[in-house]
Amino acid sequence: MSKLNVVAEAGTHEIVISRTFNAPRELVFKTMTDPNLIPQWWGPKNLTTAVDKMDVKMGGVWRYVQRDANGNEYGFRGVYHQINAPERLVFTFEWEGMPGHILLETVTFEEVDGKTIITDSSVFQSVADRDGMLQSGMEEGATESWDRLEELLKQ
Amino acid sequence: MSKLNVVAEAGTHEIVISRTFNAPRELVFKTMTDPNLIPQWWGPKNLTTAVDKMDVKMGGVWRYVQRDANGNEYGFRGVYHQINAPERLVFTFEWEGMPGHILLETVTFEEVDGKTIITDSSVFQSVADRDGMLQSGMEEGATESWDRLEELLKQ
Repeated sequence: MSKLNVVAEAGTHEIVISRTFNAPRELVFKTMTDPNLIPQWWGPKNLTTAVDKMDVKMGGVWRYVQRDANGNEYGFRGVYHQINAPERLVFTFEWEGMPGHILLETVTFEEVDGKTIITDSSVFQSVADRDGMLQSGMEEGATESWDRLEELLKQ
Repeated sequence: MSKLNVVAEAGTHEIVISRTFNAPRELVFKTMTDPNLIPQWWGPKNLTTAVDKMDVKMGGVWRYVQRDANGNEYGFRGVYHQINAPERLVFTFEWEGMPGHILLETVTFEEVDGKTIITDSSVFQSVADRDGMLQSGMEEGATESWDRLEELLKQ
């Protein structure tokens, strides 16, 4: 299984994560932008994820709600700023528990020999926000989501 | 007249500009978020600026169109991500001539002794995009807009 690569240079606003998936680019892009498939891979396995809104177009809003076994809900939302299938997605991301802390995410899809390299850059409003995200267990979370995505792509 | 202060540390994704205005914070915030007043200060004097959309609320879209003496048009747009009057605004910014190159702008308003310090942080998707904005004459442009804003606040 391909490993997740995480780059977060000290003192910068950015986190870059990348990983190679054993599937063609069209399929990877389509899978990641399909509202019906989000609940099958986005977020950790021990939470359910429901798509409240997902209007995959320039200016469209997305909103997902995660729910744990005790019924606690966690909302995430943002706005799509570019949909360039199957090459590039740009969108904002906000956890509703910390409103006003926004990040800008740029995801690129590169096909090499039938596999797809996803590179996901997030830039934060401050280095402190960036460091907070790293400390929150972001790498483990991304690894679990992308493991689930890899399983889904095999089906 | 207060000078514009510009900070852009080498190798980072951010530009921070700040300036002190001789007006109370409520008035500065109200002036900057009033669609009727945008044409009077936003952008250089030798272009006209028209507000196409300006829905100042969380998730609302803004779009301004600048026109030069030859009739050439330049569109700018983005989405408001936080409106916390009179303290803080967060929105995205895109020049339509370079779609997909987005920046995330956070503007804070601090009142000190009846004056208002505006601090405007922009984070870019890459250091290269940030450096390109600096080289495009962004400092001169911001200085002219904020000179115009200062004049408007005196009225």
